[in-house]
Amino acid sequence: MRRQGSPGPASPGPMAGPLDALFSPRTVAIVGASADSAKWGHILSRRALSSPGDRTVLLVNRSGGEVLGRPTYPSAVAAAAAAEQRVDLAVLCVPAGGFVAAVTDAVAAGARALVGITAGLAESGAEGARLEAEALAVARAGGAVLLGPNCLGIVDTGSGLQLAHAELPPGDVAVLSQSGNLVLDLAGLLADRGLGVSRFVSLGNQADLGLVDFLRACVHHAGTRAVAVYTEDVGDGRAFLEAARALRDAGKPLVLLAPGRSEAAIRGAASHTGSLTSSSMVVDAACAASGAHRVDHPTQLADLLVALRAPRRMAGRRVAILTDGGGHGAVAADALAAAGLSTPALTSGLTDDLAAALWGQATVSNPVDLAGAGEQDVASYARGVELLLASGQVDGVLLTGFFGGYSTEQSNLTAPELAAAARMAASVAAQDKPLVVQTIHPTSPSAELLRAAGIPVHRDVDRACAVLAGLCERSPSGLAEPLPPPGPPVAATSYDAARALFADVGIAFPTQRTVTDAGELDRALAAMGYPVVLKATGRLHKSEGGGVVLGLADRAAAEAAYDDLVARLAPPAVSVEEMADLDVGVELIVGAVRDRTFGPVVMVGLGGVLTEVLGDTACAIAPVTPAAARDLLLTLRGAAVLAGVRGRAPVDLDALADLVSRVSVVAAAHPELVELELNPVLAGPSGVLALDARVVADGQVTSRR
Amino acid sequence: MRRQGSPGPASPGPMAGPLDALFSPRTVAIVGASADSAKWGHILSRRALSSPGDRTVLLVNRSGGEVLGRPTYPSAVAAAAAAEQRVDLAVLCVPAGGFVAAVTDAVAAGARALVGITAGLAESGAEGARLEAEALAVARAGGAVLLGPNCLGIVDTGSGLQLAHAELPPGDVAVLSQSGNLVLDLAGLLADRGLGVSRFVSLGNQADLGLVDFLRACVHHAGTRAVAVYTEDVGDGRAFLEAARALRDAGKPLVLLAPGRSEAAIRGAASHTGSLTSSSMVVDAACAASGAHRVDHPTQLADLLVALRAPRRMAGRRVAILTDGGGHGAVAADALAAAGLSTPALTSGLTDDLAAALWGQATVSNPVDLAGAGEQDVASYARGVELLLASGQVDGVLLTGFFGGYSTEQSNLTAPELAAAARMAASVAAQDKPLVVQTIHPTSPSAELLRAAGIPVHRDVDRACAVLAGLCERSPSGLAEPLPPPGPPVAATSYDAARALFADVGIAFPTQRTVTDAGELDRALAAMGYPVVLKATGRLHKSEGGGVVLGLADRAAAEAAYDDLVARLAPPAVSVEEMADLDVGVELIVGAVRDRTFGPVVMVGLGGVLTEVLGDTACAIAPVTPAAARDLLLTLRGAAVLAGVRGRAPVDLDALADLVSRVSVVAAAHPELVELELNPVLAGPSGVLALDARVVADGQVTSRR
Repeated sequence: MRRQGSPGPASPGPMAGPLDALFSPRTVAIVGASADSAKWGHILSRRALSSPGDRTVLLVNRSGGEVLGRPTYPSAVAAAAAAEQRVDLAVLCVPAGGFVAAVTDAVAAGARALVGITAGLAESGAEGARLEAEALAVARAGGAVLLGPNCLGIVDTGSGLQLAHAELPPGDVAVLSQSGNLVLDLAGLLADRGLGVSRFVSLGNQADLGLVDFLRACVHHAGTRAVAVYTEDVGDGRAFLEAARALRDAGKPLVLLAPGRSEAAIRGAASHTGSLTSSSMVVDAACAASGAHRVDHPTQLADLLVALRAPRRMAGRRVAILTDGGGHGAVAADALAAAGLSTPALTSGLTDDLAAALWGQATVSNPVDLAGAGEQDVASYARGVELLLASGQVDGVLLTGFFGGYSTEQSNLTAPELAAAARMAASVAAQDKPLVVQTIHPTSPSAELLRAAGIPVHRDVDRACAVLAGLCERSPSGLAEPLPPPGPPVAATSYDAARALFADVGIAFPTQRTVTDAGELDRALAAMGYPVVLKATGRLHKSEGGGVVLGLADRAAAEAAYDDLVARLAPPAVSVEEMADLDVGVELIVGAVRDRTFGPVVMVGLGGVLTEVLGDTACAIAPVTPAAARDLLLTLRGAAVLAGVRGRAPVDLDALADLVSRVSVVAAAHPELVELELNPVLAGPSGVLALDARVVADGQVTSRR
Repeated sequence: MRRQGSPGPASPGPMAGPLDALFSPRTVAIVGASADSAKWGHILSRRALSSPGDRTVLLVNRSGGEVLGRPTYPSAVAAAAAAEQRVDLAVLCVPAGGFVAAVTDAVAAGARALVGITAGLAESGAEGARLEAEALAVARAGGAVLLGPNCLGIVDTGSGLQLAHAELPPGDVAVLSQSGNLVLDLAGLLADRGLGVSRFVSLGNQADLGLVDFLRACVHHAGTRAVAVYTEDVGDGRAFLEAARALRDAGKPLVLLAPGRSEAAIRGAASHTGSLTSSSMVVDAACAASGAHRVDHPTQLADLLVALRAPRRMAGRRVAILTDGGGHGAVAADALAAAGLSTPALTSGLTDDLAAALWGQATVSNPVDLAGAGEQDVASYARGVELLLASGQVDGVLLTGFFGGYSTEQSNLTAPELAAAARMAASVAAQDKPLVVQTIHPTSPSAELLRAAGIPVHRDVDRACAVLAGLCERSPSGLAEPLPPPGPPVAATSYDAARALFADVGIAFPTQRTVTDAGELDRALAAMGYPVVLKATGRLHKSEGGGVVLGLADRAAAEAAYDDLVARLAPPAVSVEEMADLDVGVELIVGAVRDRTFGPVVMVGLGGVLTEVLGDTACAIAPVTPAAARDLLLTLRGAAVLAGVRGRAPVDLDALADLVSRVSVVAAAHPELVELELNPVLAGPSGVLALDARVVADGQVTSRR
């Protein structure tokens, strides 16, 4: 039923016309208006009538009667006739059985926008889906757009439209959500932080208008400065990426709360690549590819929206901690690490400067600890922050502990502390790097001064660290490349065909022959050096059931292994390959999977059999450039192994990144393939070699066992 | 300077005498009392004078004069004489140079307890350490105990003693801390939650009394119901474990905030085992071995203290989520996973019961989603909680979202919601399993009712999940075994000696001979099957620089490799070993390290060269039983590989656990060894084999390169 981002009446451009009718209607009809205060038709009638402005509100109820002291009309058409006005927006609160008729009536009354509150449609099964499709056809034929059905309403605080289950505070954050109660949650959290909502859209079933349509509208909406999204499914992933990039280019941060659906979300997949690539990892990759910020829960979302209002971002993940007292510093160092940030050692030039600026007992490593100087010399906080921000050695500063408490506890320290806060704010503005503050006294005058300067102030250190992590800028190399045009479809998915597909784009394999009898085996062996490997083909996982025999040192051993494979497994053919020396490199998996939302996604992982269990994998929206592939490889938890450990030479990272990029391009050019995999890839000091290959076509019957 | 847990006047038993003088003195002398309001001698004089009760407070100042309208005496002896009372407790706020004299004077005045506020002693260098030692000797000679120096004071709200930088709210939580400002932080957080402090001890330099002494005192202190510790170093780790166990046995939860000192804390170590075992991991192991609860920051500490007041604990890590609206459920599932908890699928019997108890649109998987039934039927929340808690399928329940808001938003729902809350509280009491609540309305009457019933209620879902995780009971098998008596010290640490040490306790190695010439090589080869491995001995890391040659298929290959090794590396000897078939098992590292705090710690990790990089390791306080070793192995992130992946047979987990237990016993019996390591250990379906061994003696000069 979804149509997000696909061509249709709602998609081209910002859709000023129909969305104007949705967000700024002159005339609103509440269809299914009710006198029963527990019903949506009542709640939305009340909201519509109490919304500010000179909007005409028409209440429609088939049975007539009064609602909230206002007359009702038996139909939208009758209401429009009585009011001598065309209806712009109709909000449909009728039961599912009356939905098609209500849409038909609303369109006849002139409605160009419909909000379907009605539930029990596509989300409830086949009959509901049929009704929803019928209603959508009627709406489209009448030139109207449809929000929902099964949604909770819409708000535009700019036009004064409050048509949702709760009245939302005005502000400049657009909230687009697939969940109702979470919006109440978020609205409260935003209000606590002095923020409010420009537009709220409850997306519902997205039969017509979808998330991407509203993201696009936010790009151009003057009242919106940031966008908060709760979604369990972004719809057309590539259209989402495009809209997210457009928001980024417009300087409007996009913060995404997209829960990862736990273990059950990892699709049963035919390849390692498939089972190693969860939906949630792909959403992370999509954020990396579009500059969107991902959060884990509503409080983090609200905190990050506050911080993103200031233009300063973390260019890397290095943070300096400044505190007065070792305890807060040590706890903050742990909290930063938990948030994926680092507290690097400071170089001697900077530590000398800090030692000169602070008193003798201060610790000038990272964390920097004023060691009790706060009371004597509140200004030393500001001098410390100034030096750290200006140093170039860190990407941001975390001030943690007691600052804010001097003014609170000793009135003679109020002025000095406020002066220190002002000086910090000036440093932040001058250096254009973020300072985030955690303090026991978050409501002190100094804390308020910092907040007013756009410096986030938190009571809890984990919240402060999450904000710093959320301010990290994505590497530009991670931003998504456009999809290439599809290549000629792959005709076969055999082992030979898979090898050929990758070899054609320049990926190297060991010397290999496919043989089907003893004569071919002898000729193949004559053409290569020992040891060799034999692989029984025709099965997705060659190594299961003893289908791969490694390290055959001579002809006799190879012949015996061949006979054994044929006898045990009766494979269609046997692949004979020169065996690479696994001791001179690092084994990786490089693959790609076709994500049902984002399309081709490239994946890298470390290790052989352990890859699957340890799950040290990373993925990116395909295709990726070699530079982006390199960045991706370096995000692996065990990336250090690529640089050489325990005396090993570093692997040829350029060659490896090039291979990953090539795999991503193949995946992007072959929409008929759902999974591609090179496993293992042997990365050595002087090049990389793919030791096995497989591809899975769309619809191909596969089994993991 | 530390003497924690060691024999001495302060250590035997609960030390009622001296600690009584410390916590409940009849007469207190503030030495260094000052009229300057910025000085400690002023702040503590004020606190002492304003403390309740009929305690005598004597102010001592060398220069005389009045402080806070009270006369001062030139010495404690003079003050005691004037008051005709022996001083019980002397608080010393004098400069470092006067510290020894002040201690001498205080002891002469009868003091049996001293609190050293004075800084600039052992923490500042050698001269300070000398003064501190001298003062300690004087105190001990006089039969007095010393808290600090370099501490911030002491509070006992039971006896009305408030001698710290801030006045702390009374309550039943003992707070023992190495940090000052963190205590202010924590006290505020406790007060926000209706909790307070029974005793606060600022530990300072722990010259005499240490953390363990105060933990022991808490076991018997009637006013203390729970203990909160901030420490960067617990001192004598084994004594800590004993005291923590005693608290556990007394039903007094111990919550530990012990920051992990980031990367720099991982000691430069000679072996893999050393570099893979961080202090922070060992602290986790200590918590597992003693039933202490570890937290990451003060807010988590305060939250967990609230939750631990109720007796209910999580017996495992399985949680059911109940919500009304999919968004909160999905976000909660992610938050639980982030906290290390699982949301298992529910079996059909339970889902049938839920379906019968809830309305038709409810989702009865996990998360259980009332899907909008809340307004119509608030009681369905209670029915859901009841069924989930009684099911035996989960160890706790997380209620998340809107509950609490019905009474807040619609007055006619107040009574039904309160009734539902009461019913939930009854279920929790009946089933003795934890329910934790996250709600948008944390101050609603229903939320307060739940809180009053000992059910934690949170605004933020990550806080709720952290509390659930904190309530997990440690496995009894993880509780520490006593140290065995030391065995005869190991005389040599050569490769042969290391192998012999482990072989003597029944650990199996492949057939092996150590050879020093070609003749010995020939005889060795004649005694074993091919392929063989040659290892150049005499270096800590045999594999570096090509010192290990694998897979030598015949005598010619072995002889050539031997000649090459001798020519290149001139090793003292070469080890010739039958080569195990690495394809039939899983490689692990099993080792032990002597932690400077906790003594012998056993470590297990998956993988060969990747072990170090990926860091999938786990450790436990040694020795461990085979059962505890098995539990430890199963905590590895990649533990699934032990159960067999992709058609491999599962490894012999019993044999592997037995080997780990044996290694732990060897480590525990050999205090002269600082590191022991079997790497790799090859764990196969029918047994385990150690393929290499090394030990490092205390003081042995080693190098990683």
